[in-house]
Formats: sequence, structure tokens, C-alpha cells
Amino acid sequence: MPEHMPSDLAAVETPALVVDLDRLDDNLTRVAEYAASHGLALRPHVKTHKSPYVAAAQLRLGAKGLTCATTREAEVMSEVSDDVLLAYPPVGRARARRLAAIPSPTRVIAALDSEQAASELARAARDARREIGVYVELDLGMHRVGTPTVDGAVALARHVSETDGLTFEGIAFYPGHIRQALPEQDDALESLDTALTRALERFHEAALPPRVVSGGSTPTLWRTHEVPGVTEIRPGTYVFNDRQTVATGACTWDDCALTVLATVVSTAIPGQVVIDAGTKALGREPMTDPAAGFGQLLDRPGVIVSRMSEEHGILDLGDSGWRPAVGDVVQVVPNHVCVAVHLQDVMYGVRGGRLERSWPIAARGRGQPSV
Amino acid sequence: MPEHMPSDLAAVETPALVVDLDRLDDNLTRVAEYAASHGLALRPHVKTHKSPYVAAAQLRLGAKGLTCATTREAEVMSEVSDDVLLAYPPVGRARARRLAAIPSPTRVIAALDSEQAASELARAARDARREIGVYVELDLGMHRVGTPTVDGAVALARHVSETDGLTFEGIAFYPGHIRQALPEQDDALESLDTALTRALERFHEAALPPRVVSGGSTPTLWRTHEVPGVTEIRPGTYVFNDRQTVATGACTWDDCALTVLATVVSTAIPGQVVIDAGTKALGREPMTDPAAGFGQLLDRPGVIVSRMSEEHGILDLGDSGWRPAVGDVVQVVPNHVCVAVHLQDVMYGVRGGRLERSWPIAARGRGQPSV
Repeated sequence: MPEHMPSDLAAVETPALVVDLDRLDDNLTRVAEYAASHGLALRPHVKTHKSPYVAAAQLRLGAKGLTCATTREAEVMSEVSDDVLLAYPPVGRARARRLAAIPSPTRVIAALDSEQAASELARAARDARREIGVYVELDLGMHRVGTPTVDGAVALARHVSETDGLTFEGIAFYPGHIRQALPEQDDALESLDTALTRALERFHEAALPPRVVSGGSTPTLWRTHEVPGVTEIRPGTYVFNDRQTVATGACTWDDCALTVLATVVSTAIPGQVVIDAGTKALGREPMTDPAAGFGQLLDRPGVIVSRMSEEHGILDLGDSGWRPAVGDVVQVVPNHVCVAVHLQDVMYGVRGGRLERSWPIAARGRGQPSV
Repeated sequence: MPEHMPSDLAAVETPALVVDLDRLDDNLTRVAEYAASHGLALRPHVKTHKSPYVAAAQLRLGAKGLTCATTREAEVMSEVSDDVLLAYPPVGRARARRLAAIPSPTRVIAALDSEQAASELARAARDARREIGVYVELDLGMHRVGTPTVDGAVALARHVSETDGLTFEGIAFYPGHIRQALPEQDDALESLDTALTRALERFHEAALPPRVVSGGSTPTLWRTHEVPGVTEIRPGTYVFNDRQTVATGACTWDDCALTVLATVVSTAIPGQVVIDAGTKALGREPMTDPAAGFGQLLDRPGVIVSRMSEEHGILDLGDSGWRPAVGDVVQVVPNHVCVAVHLQDVMYGVRGGRLERSWPIAARGRGQPSV
């Protein structure tokens, strides 16, 4: 067990998710203060933690509501929040109905980019005798979802505003393509500005002024105030951070709050060490440099997880001189924390060398019915 | 919904796992018959399905016991089997104790490659007042775990046989490095033969004859009878198969029994289609050719999932001429089915156009305690 890890964690089988609660608190506070100081509404994305415990802390610090990627997340989060956004096209009868079935004291919004999605959602809303808010999703360069033209976005907003059961609330975009480190973000942000400004002019000309202009993504988080017109931010990863976030410059190594606790299970093959965190604990999310592997030890950043199979991670000892023994416990910072969290059911929170509490990752999975 | 899919699946939100029960039955039967016809004991690996429902079917068809990668799998599978193998080093006090705590009517075996693992397991076995069987793991070319020298393996077997609480049962190896298609397996299998024959001679000379010689891995499955000395096989993936299994030649495309049902959620960006199966449904497991993407449509093998984010899969329509609409449902054959299953909680079994049953993926996750 690493020195600063509480000894009572020895009762927990690895691989396990361990959260440094002081770092989590710092991350939560820093973003809440950034949003407040720039007059931006904060609607954090829960896909990163999927935990009512963390969501409730975000809300206590001033978040106006929560952002979800799945109906499961929206269902679970409606227990702690009265305002949830599904930042995902609510396509498919089952998805639309689950969203509309969220208990009505909770306000529900969905982001969408097609009339088909709007029609299906409107039908579900009317059947459930409720109103569902809509953000029209614009593509501002990510090229994943979102209407690619402003004309199309305005037409969709008009369609929504004329559809019973739906209320046009605003526009949403996701600048997930801007992942470069801070100094190089300038050009990308400038073209984002231009595109957004033009879009907002057209919405105003069409007499469909968006009440909310919602942007997301942790890598660009700290520069949102430079983009005129944005009223709301939806960062997710900032609660824990990870290797990818460090690489974009949006946080430092010391801001990484979540690690995968893993045990050395074999040193039999000379020149390598096997830990019990493989694909089914870390995921296979890449860094830009393929040679950077799939995770990095918190206390020995020179040591990376260079190869994996389902339950095996191969540590490349590199130049570290470190020669661990079978049974030694290490902390791995994953490349992409959202994926690592999605693979577990519980998190263990430590503070000051003590295991303070655990909490369920209650919104993990899909919550699908048995038949 | 694809034509042959039951309409009652429309009530299930995608992404969802759908199993073609006729194909599953065929896959189960084919391997059971192969094992029986060659006098090989079959101890299927449950990591692929993590489902008591599928495990029970394997046992009804003559499997002598089950193979597990995690204690969670072993705990859950002890409900349907009286003989479970943990084919994973039982390192760490929590892991050893959980394994030893499996109700004692179920026989428990563990594969290990170090004296440290043996000592920890023996202590847990004695504390639980039970005997645990041991396979000594040999490295025969995979270079992941396993004693790299036969001398080391014999010494470890002797240590185990002299340790209270443990019984030396046999040797295990995993030829997971032999992944090439069938005709090219010859050389690799020949060097495996040679290594195994030499190892068995040494165990006999040392008066430690292994009662069981256990080999694994679906890619080499159909040639196990060519390797003299093997008494037991531990294939996993054969129940469902996947793109990687097809690529090794161990099955055909028509043997793929599991697909990820997914919905087209956006066609907004010209030239691409977005489905709701991304990294959190398919995993990011690679094919040998990086351009082959992360999954392939069952009914349109020319269409692949070329890029992904957490909940988005981008379909490359390629030369298919197919232009799906928002709301269309597709079936994706994943690259690596074991990873796709680990991301869900329930499977839906269809037969003859009917939704016959669903079952829980009960051994998914880690089953870790709350504190």
C-alpha cells in the first residue's frame, strides 16, 4: 500500500477507484468560483462521476442544474437535482419515454439536432402531460452532432417553438475538437467566436433569441469567458481530471483526484510487472502519443501501463530503477477518467490518510428492464 | 428495427446487448462436442458472458467446471457450479480471502506463478478451514504471467505440494499469443508442443505429475487435440464470438451470436451517421488493421464504426450506398465481445424473431463493499 494510503483500504480488493477528497473539493471549488466570477451558469456534466454524492456537492457550490448523457444518469440525478439536461439526442421511443417519465418536479431539457428527435420527444412529453425544454444543438467545428448550418438551426428552433409539449430554451454546442494545449487554442477559439456571434445574430433576426447559450468541455473551460454570448458551461472531467486533461493544459498533475488502485500480481516474466488493472479497469483510451500507454503511476510518473489485456496491465518500469514485489499496491492515473469510472460500481474517498467514505456510482449502466 | 428483430425490443433503450439464441446454442454445442470427441475436459471461461444463465447451459452440455478471472465471477458462478477455477493470480489479502470464502461445497482452484501468491492463498485457505487447489501457471510464449522456466515451475509446484491448505492439481498455460489465422498457426503450435512436452517430462522426473494440464484461448481452440499432454481447455469467447475471433479463423461471421443494438441518433453532419454505441458500449478494442474501426454492422459488413466518443459511434458508410434515417436501429458486431459485455447489466435473447428472455450479467463488476 502506498505510504499515504489508509491501511483500511487493504480490505478492498483491487482494482478499485480511490478519490483524493481534498483534491476533489479543490477542483469543485475552482470551477464554481470561475463560473461565478464570470457570471456563467454552471451545469456540470455527470458522465464523469455518475454519482449523486458528487453531483450534490456540485449543486451545493452553486451549480444551477446537471448535464447528463444517458436517461439512466438523468433518472438517478433527478433524485438530487430539480433541473437536468440530457445533452444527447433523445432519439428512440424508449429513450424519449424514459426522459419524459422523470418525476415532473424536476425540469427536463434535451439537446437535439433533428426534427425527428423533436417529434418523438414532443409525443413523449404530451403523453406524460409535461413540457420539455429544448436546446438546439449547433455544430461549431466538432463535426459529431449538431446542425451544420445556422439556417438549419434557426429552422429547427422555429419548429420546436411551434410544437406542443416542447419549449425552445436555447442553443448548445460542444467544442470538443479544441483539445490542444492552452497557447495553441487561440486560433480555434477565434473561429468559434466568429461562428457563434454569426449564429446569435441570425437567431435574434429570426425573433428566436436563445435564453441560454450552453457550451461544454473541460479543455476549453478556463477560456469560456473570452467567447462572447456564452451563458452556461457544462464541464465534466474537471471533478477528477486525468492524463488527457493534464495534456491539454486545463489542469496540473497535482489536480488529478482519482486513481485506480491496483496490485502487482506477477513479476514472473523478467523485465516487466503485471498489475490487476487492464482494459476492464482502465479502458483503452489513447493519449496523442501511442507510446504513452494507458495510464501512469501517480507517485512514479515515469512508469506507464504500456500494454493490457482484460484484467492485466503491463507496467513498463522504464528508467525508474523501481523493482516492485508481488502484492505491492500502486495508484494509476487513467488516460480518460470518465471511461474508468464507467467500469466500476463504487468509489472510495480518502482524506488525510483516512478512508472517509465510499459512495455508489449509481448512474452507471443503462437501467434496462428485464423481460 | 432490423426486419428479423422482434418488435418488442423497441421497448428496450439502446445501446443494448442482443444474443441470437440459435447461434449461441450452436456455438455451445460445437465446442462441447469437440471437447468430448477428443477426450478433453471443458472448463469454459465465464469472463465473456458473466452470466449464470449461459454458464448453466455450458454445464448441462458437459463442462466439468468453470473458469473465472475475478473473485466476483467465482462468487456468482459458485451458485451454478461446484467446481470453479480462478485463472488469475490470487494476490492481495482481499482477493485471497474472498476466494477462500466461496461456500465450501464448491471446489476452488487458483492458478498462480509466485510463492508470495501461494503463501497468501494458503493462509486464507487455512483461516477458512478448507483446501484450495492450485494450477502452477507456465509461460509458454505469451509473456504475460507464468513462470518463465520449467525449473521455476517445478520448484513452485513442490512448494505448493508441501504447503498446508493447498493441493497441487496441475499446470496451466495460456497460448494467447497465438492469434494468427489457422494455416499460420503451425509453427507457433509446434514450438508450444516442444515446450510443453519438455515441461511435462521434468514434472514427471520430479515426481510431481500434474493431474491436469489446462490450456486456454479460443483462437487455438480447434487444434488443442494436436498438442500432446493437454487434458483441459478453457475457451471463453466461443460462446458469442466477435470480429477478432472471425479474424483469427476460429469462427465464421455467421457464428457471431452477440450484437450491440444501436440507434441512429444524428445524421446532421453530411457524410456520416452517429449511433448511440460509443466507447461506453463497444470499448475501444482494436483490430490488427487500425483502419478497421471498432465494430461492424451485422447486416452490412461494409459499414464500420470508424470513430467514437463516450456515447457516440461514427458510422463510415463507405461504398454501401446505404443512407439511414434518424431512429433506424442497427446491430453492431463488436471487435472484442468480452469488453462489450462488461459494459452492460442485461442481455436480451432472441430466437425466430421473438424476444425469448433476458438475463442479468450478474458477475459484472467487482462486488466491492461499501464502507
